[in-house]
Amino acid sequence: MSKRLVRVIVNVSPKAYPVLIGDGVLEKIAAHAPRGKKVAVVSDEKVFALYGEALCGKLKDAGRATTKIIIKAGEQQKNMEIFSTVLTQMIESNIGRDGWVAALGGGVVGDLAGFAAAVYLRGVAVMQIPTTLLAQVDSAIGGKTGVNHHLGKNLIGAFHQPETVLCDTAVLATLSEREYSAELAEVVKYGLLGEAVFFKWLEKNAAAVMARDCGALARVIAELVKIKAAIVSSDEREKGRRALLNLGHTFAHAIESAVGYGEWSHGEAVAVGLLAAARLSEKLNGFSAIDTARIESLLSCFALPIRFPDISTESLSAFMLLDKKNTADGMHFVLMRAIGDAELTPLANKELVLHTIEEMKE
Amino acid sequence: MSKRLVRVIVNVSPKAYPVLIGDGVLEKIAAHAPRGKKVAVVSDEKVFALYGEALCGKLKDAGRATTKIIIKAGEQQKNMEIFSTVLTQMIESNIGRDGWVAALGGGVVGDLAGFAAAVYLRGVAVMQIPTTLLAQVDSAIGGKTGVNHHLGKNLIGAFHQPETVLCDTAVLATLSEREYSAELAEVVKYGLLGEAVFFKWLEKNAAAVMARDCGALARVIAELVKIKAAIVSSDEREKGRRALLNLGHTFAHAIESAVGYGEWSHGEAVAVGLLAAARLSEKLNGFSAIDTARIESLLSCFALPIRFPDISTESLSAFMLLDKKNTADGMHFVLMRAIGDAELTPLANKELVLHTIEEMKE
Repeated sequence: MSKRLVRVIVNVSPKAYPVLIGDGVLEKIAAHAPRGKKVAVVSDEKVFALYGEALCGKLKDAGRATTKIIIKAGEQQKNMEIFSTVLTQMIESNIGRDGWVAALGGGVVGDLAGFAAAVYLRGVAVMQIPTTLLAQVDSAIGGKTGVNHHLGKNLIGAFHQPETVLCDTAVLATLSEREYSAELAEVVKYGLLGEAVFFKWLEKNAAAVMARDCGALARVIAELVKIKAAIVSSDEREKGRRALLNLGHTFAHAIESAVGYGEWSHGEAVAVGLLAAARLSEKLNGFSAIDTARIESLLSCFALPIRFPDISTESLSAFMLLDKKNTADGMHFVLMRAIGDAELTPLANKELVLHTIEEMKE
Repeated sequence: MSKRLVRVIVNVSPKAYPVLIGDGVLEKIAAHAPRGKKVAVVSDEKVFALYGEALCGKLKDAGRATTKIIIKAGEQQKNMEIFSTVLTQMIESNIGRDGWVAALGGGVVGDLAGFAAAVYLRGVAVMQIPTTLLAQVDSAIGGKTGVNHHLGKNLIGAFHQPETVLCDTAVLATLSEREYSAELAEVVKYGLLGEAVFFKWLEKNAAAVMARDCGALARVIAELVKIKAAIVSSDEREKGRRALLNLGHTFAHAIESAVGYGEWSHGEAVAVGLLAAARLSEKLNGFSAIDTARIESLLSCFALPIRFPDISTESLSAFMLLDKKNTADGMHFVLMRAIGDAELTPLANKELVLHTIEEMKE
């Protein structure tokens, strides 16, 4: 029996491109690949060991010549030096203007390889093949590519939309339990930004999602891609609505900074941030306490933290003042009036933020 | 008396931008500058020493905070390492999304600073302030930015259109005679790509152009910008018409490669290449011998070479086979049917090329 394939179209100027979602879609790469004969397959050691050779084999069977460009795994690889060596390897492989890049991996590989594709010969095609849930629904969609600088994250990059995004639900089975849970925090975030009916579906199907059931995952990915696509289509250059994607992130960044990056994963910090945003929304925007309880319950189902770490509130709030959204004219938070109804809100009273954090200490 | 300012609009998607041409237009920078308060003024030591402080002064008077990013002069600076240091200095100066780059210099500075603007925070505005004739009419128009790689020129870059281009005819007075003559080779090239009436104007006004008369220069720059703008507007991504800009360049690159870069300047090689293209066009496309003589005469007026260097024809033709245009299906040359009527032409018979070179030996 042929496996079901879900297709979502992302409509961004100057072109639209398909996101193909399904169990085993990686095996069908040849049917969806750009025409160019030369392909740079960019991946990290960990992911390449799992899927790299099979992917290159499929491409070779379809008449493509592959160059393997394999980096070490980890966020610290997303820098100008590695970027430069990826470009050098592409040049040494004589990849021409009709050549293309296959970015096989998580967000780091997608951002780095996408940026290389953006500037190689002033732009060649890229196919994004994200292998984490977060990359599938978030970083591979929207065309943001780039590298970090030692003075800050994602400071150098380009907007470069992929030709196609391949999201294979089967690859998610290899993530560790903690990694997978952390990724579900972003699923909850999108659940709060999308329609209330999808949040309800998530609550009902939380167990299937936790069990990484391929059917449930395909539904989750398709919904999240649609939500992200709607936001970035309306706002490719991040002027307004794209800011909504930061729901929970002001608190989350403060936690990550205060405990030191690596101690808490980003997703774990986002989980607490989402709950804090809900509680602050109760105080400021009339968000329902029942809905806050629903969020807390869903986060718990996904084995995510729901309390701030044992760090002084002053220290946390100091990091929040460094947030990008708070430099221009006072603090800004993405807050909700209801599930599915969020907006960027100016915040005059810092006390409410401190109070929210205090309430949520362990 | 207020000096006359010529304004040409370059119409490229997704936006149109003005090229402002005139004697002393640099002094009016504030009136044409982007709104952002923070500016990175990128320049080379040589050009900055001449115009840098005055320019920064004008910007400061208009309420802008300037960061000076000064590189050494020369093509070898156009590399990934210098590119990376420019970005680091921009980050250290806390230039935000509404900040912008002023690229003050020749083609190297324009390409490097333009590329930095293209990828800094995924794209900030750039004002191009070209200080050589070639940069004013060619490299600053069309949005190509980038750096070289040790394996080849311009292999890494982006399309990034400027907000405004400022072409001050007065700055051309500081170029050496040899530099200036070399730049006029590209003027002749555009004269052959534009309308025949402009080529006639060039012949009549050759002495005024050689004398760097500001009025004559303003006319030359405006005409050339219009020709280049028409070509790039119709073909931003270099699929067809943009190839016409390579008129004379297949021969020119062979000369530069065969004698070693630096011995002959690019412009000098282009001069010989244009004449060779005209002679080959006679043999293949019915180009008039009288027009060939007019080209030779104009090149001589501009003190440019009109004979190949004393290098074996075999060696020159070997380098021509390496030309990018000749890799796909046989050799291709940009040839003319008449002045103002050029097209990319396939060439079956290599002998005609060798014969043309032989005829033009010293």
